[in-house]
Amino acid sequence: MQRPSFASRFGEPEESELPDDIRTIYETNRAKIGFVPNVFRAYAKRPEHFRAFMGYHDVLMKGPGGLSRAEREAIVVAVSSENQCQYCMTAHGAALRILGKDPMLAEQIANNWRTADLTPRWRAMLAFASRVNERGFAATDDEIEALRAQGFSDDDVWDVAAIAAFFGFSNRMAGVMDMRPNPEFYSMGR
Amino acid sequence: MQRPSFASRFGEPEESELPDDIRTIYETNRAKIGFVPNVFRAYAKRPEHFRAFMGYHDVLMKGPGGLSRAEREAIVVAVSSENQCQYCMTAHGAALRILGKDPMLAEQIANNWRTADLTPRWRAMLAFASRVNERGFAATDDEIEALRAQGFSDDDVWDVAAIAAFFGFSNRMAGVMDMRPNPEFYSMGR
Amino acid sequence: MQRPSFASRFGEPEESELPDDIRTIYETNRAKIGFVPNVFRAYAKRPEHFRAFMGYHDVLMKGPGGLSRAEREAIVVAVSSENQCQYCMTAHGAALRILGKDPMLAEQIANNWRTADLTPRWRAMLAFASRVNERGFAATDDEIEALRAQGFSDDDVWDVAAIAAFFGFSNRMAGVMDMRPNPEFYSMGR
Amino acid sequence: MQRPSFASRFGEPEESELPDDIRTIYETNRAKIGFVPNVFRAYAKRPEHFRAFMGYHDVLMKGPGGLSRAEREAIVVAVSSENQCQYCMTAHGAALRILGKDPMLAEQIANNWRTADLTPRWRAMLAFASRVNERGFAATDDEIEALRAQGFSDDDVWDVAAIAAFFGFSNRMAGVMDMRPNPEFYSMGR
Amino acid sequence: MQRPSFASRFGEPEESELPDDIRTIYETNRAKIGFVPNVFRAYAKRPEHFRAFMGYHDVLMKGPGGLSRAEREAIVVAVSSENQCQYCMTAHGAALRILGKDPMLAEQIANNWRTADLTPRWRAMLAFASRVNERGFAATDDEIEALRAQGFSDDDVWDVAAIAAFFGFSNRMAGVMDMRPNPEFYSMGR
Amino acid sequence: MQRPSFASRFGEPEESELPDDIRTIYETNRAKIGFVPNVFRAYAKRPEHFRAFMGYHDVLMKGPGGLSRAEREAIVVAVSSENQCQYCMTAHGAALRILGKDPMLAEQIANNWRTADLTPRWRAMLAFASRVNERGFAATDDEIEALRAQGFSDDDVWDVAAIAAFFGFSNRMAGVMDMRPNPEFYSMGR
Repeated sequence: MQRPSFASRFGEPEESELPDDIRTIYETNRAKIGFVPNVFRAYAKRPEHFRAFMGYHDVLMKGPGGLSRAEREAIVVAVSSENQCQYCMTAHGAALRILGKDPMLAEQIANNWRTADLTPRWRAMLAFASRVNERGFAATDDEIEALRAQGFSDDDVWDVAAIAAFFGFSNRMAGVMDMRPNPEFYSMGR
Repeated sequence: MQRPSFASRFGEPEESELPDDIRTIYETNRAKIGFVPNVFRAYAKRPEHFRAFMGYHDVLMKGPGGLSRAEREAIVVAVSSENQCQYCMTAHGAALRILGKDPMLAEQIANNWRTADLTPRWRAMLAFASRVNERGFAATDDEIEALRAQGFSDDDVWDVAAIAAFFGFSNRMAGVMDMRPNPEFYSMGR
Repeated sequence: MQRPSFASRFGEPEESELPDDIRTIYETNRAKIGFVPNVFRAYAKRPEHFRAFMGYHDVLMKGPGGLSRAEREAIVVAVSSENQCQYCMTAHGAALRILGKDPMLAEQIANNWRTADLTPRWRAMLAFASRVNERGFAATDDEIEALRAQGFSDDDVWDVAAIAAFFGFSNRMAGVMDMRPNPEFYSMGR
Repeated sequence: MQRPSFASRFGEPEESELPDDIRTIYETNRAKIGFVPNVFRAYAKRPEHFRAFMGYHDVLMKGPGGLSRAEREAIVVAVSSENQCQYCMTAHGAALRILGKDPMLAEQIANNWRTADLTPRWRAMLAFASRVNERGFAATDDEIEALRAQGFSDDDVWDVAAIAAFFGFSNRMAGVMDMRPNPEFYSMGR
Repeated sequence: MQRPSFASRFGEPEESELPDDIRTIYETNRAKIGFVPNVFRAYAKRPEHFRAFMGYHDVLMKGPGGLSRAEREAIVVAVSSENQCQYCMTAHGAALRILGKDPMLAEQIANNWRTADLTPRWRAMLAFASRVNERGFAATDDEIEALRAQGFSDDDVWDVAAIAAFFGFSNRMAGVMDMRPNPEFYSMGR
Repeated sequence: MQRPSFASRFGEPEESELPDDIRTIYETNRAKIGFVPNVFRAYAKRPEHFRAFMGYHDVLMKGPGGLSRAEREAIVVAVSSENQCQYCMTAHGAALRILGKDPMLAEQIANNWRTADLTPRWRAMLAFASRVNERGFAATDDEIEALRAQGFSDDDVWDVAAIAAFFGFSNRMAGVMDMRPNPEFYSMGR
């Protein structure tokens, strides 16, 4: 069937109206992957929100820390799968296939991290991310200790939780915007 | 019993080690309300996270838009109550009592927004915030229309959802940090 | 906004029509705390129900036994919070602030007993009360043993369960009556 | 297998030690149905609780009102089935078979009231009883109106809710006591 | 009230139109228990479905294996009770009363297997069947080991799971057909 | 990481030991798609179960009826996604990509049918399949009417329900077997 062509149900600005910093990000994306992911087009409608969202995103996903880029994407995919977020499963599924260099494992995590072929470190990490995703989450000391026993530092625990919780927020923003995945994502990294 | 004196289970930096921008925020808070809310002390351990969190917070809670300051706090209290977040119920409960100028209503919303004495506008707003807070949230066109019928613009709908979802994220960060409310909050605005 | 002035959606009798025993209870309350709690005004519509409810209430909350008055109120507040009962959280929240002599702890239990600063005895007690509050509750021998290990006698276990379950009943009666908290409760014991 | 012979895991008093009013109730039961239901033997351990429980029970199940005896038992069976209460399903299942004069319908309600062959009045009544049984129940005006449209008075609505909620309490007491059904109940009224 | 006389909301074929193999099954049932269970009359509308369903049913319920006939029926009753399936609770409740030779235990399992008077073997078996019945079930190695420790072979574990899951399917087919229990079942084996 | 090479945790027979009918199925699969799907290898351990499962599968997925092959696979994928079944999402995801001739839509349904770009017919069909997948499902007359209004015949409604419920059974069998998807499935039809 014919697909909706919008990025968000709230619409998006003309590119000619974009502030310079956001236009630059559009151009960087086009240069790097050939298109502008719809999450940028959706948030561009409100530049202050765009900057706050992308700024925080980059601290969590690209900032210094003990988690690899692939591990961070695995958390996003596992949580987005539990929240059944159409946009994030598609866009971050692609990212995990590429950064994780194991497309089959990426698919398994998108399906169900519990039955994916995980190392003990990844299993502990995704189990905790899933706990964070529960309503009313509050960690016990024992849960924190269990992660430390797997080699995660305090900052690593913070990062697992922050990535899981931030994408719980992001999943819901995609849900209010009816954010649609760009068609290009579906085949990336296969 | 004796209370734990920490702001977060991950500890906090010495004030002498704070970057200038964060120290200024500490001082502003002391001047204004007499103490530094523990959410600042907890995030100060990682300045980049502090700045990203507070920056986004201010866009949502203090930025331009159709929602009053009290309405924004009401969303935070309603969602934090559903997530049973100890820190946010206490700190934002105080904020709602003060900004909303109706401490009894603030208490009712903290108890259960469904049985609080709400105007139709607030009832629609909190019902939608609660929906956003559900796992797997994705809004239907009908739900968006129902809010528009109550006078909410597209940007207002975005803001209700963003505040509800951002504090779902914030509630979970408090849950991983075991963030403790400052004692001062309990009696503010009563 | 203007608040509804009723005690219950089913109405209440004129005081002139009250049976003597119930009028005496009204007068005792006015003498002691300055007003008649709405739970009395709501049940007074049907005197036989009033007597059965208050009689059982007093056996549970004032009868002999190993639980202190504050402990009994803590159970009521924890269960009523999980059931989000507007009336009981307000009225028994006030009672717990006064009887427990620790208003901050009372507030924490109303927010979420799991993250309140509890002694091990109170934690075991409220964890069991919360279990009783689950649909389909049936205690295993191990659960009973865990409470005995914390010093609770058989009668104490009975009392924890009976108070938790009776207020689950009471919360639902408030829910059918749309029982409104008296304004006086909000500030008592702060 | 061999069955436990106790009425309750907390034990029961010797009959020689019973207060006169409770002994009379034992004797009345033996005269009427040939045995003492275990709910009496379990509560007899604490006479004040026995009296409060049975007193309230009789107000609800035998007091004046618009609900027939069979309707009241149908509410008990439907709620006890949703709570999967071994004792109440067995004892009140027998009562409903006898008082309702339709053992097949009694069995259907014990299995699942939603797919039982109910009149519209009974369907509305049990649907509301099931709602009362939900955690966090608070009735909307529309729900009350729907019952009034089926001919239920305010007192009838109160009674449906009170019976449903009181047996939610009773189910949980059976759950803490591990109350065992008397063998006689299983075949009564078949 | 008057009961619907249909076997299924989708109707059933005239017996004169039945294929020979299915007519034979009708006749065998009449010879053996005096009537044709409605599950046969409902599936007979589509003979290929009838044969596939009954064929699989017989492999699971009558095939070789380590589980007794009564154990297999106990699994069906426990799962059908959790799914509140009107037809299966009635028809297989009768079967369990007869095959298990302990009608009281059969009734307890229909009410709630968790509080039934079970042997350790049956408790492990029904606990696993209940797990299988959960949405998203995937067994851990530890769960399988726990069953092996109770003497269940790999094929036995397979059979417990297959019976539990097949009747989850069957319960849902009864749910779409609004399949009505034959009146004869209610009193069989009492 | 290294993947487990088994089809099922219960093992599989040597091909030399297979009965002729099952060996033929292995050979047919190798000829057609180049490998033997693990579901065959897992069930082959018990030939009677293999035949019953595959026989019923073929009635539902290949039998005559109003649902297209793609529609049947869409039901399987939607239900398996809600049950998070690793094997079925992978194997039937591939089938849907191929039979549905719209790999992007297939991926959307695997992610979340609710936010997939569906026609009204498919939306009604998958909404009903999801309902069937709920514990305690029993269809109301209104639900059946809603499907008829979308052009589904009684047999079509039966088929939607039967496919949804049969794969709920199949998902659970994969869950007990820890059935692993063949690597070939991941890229088929992309």
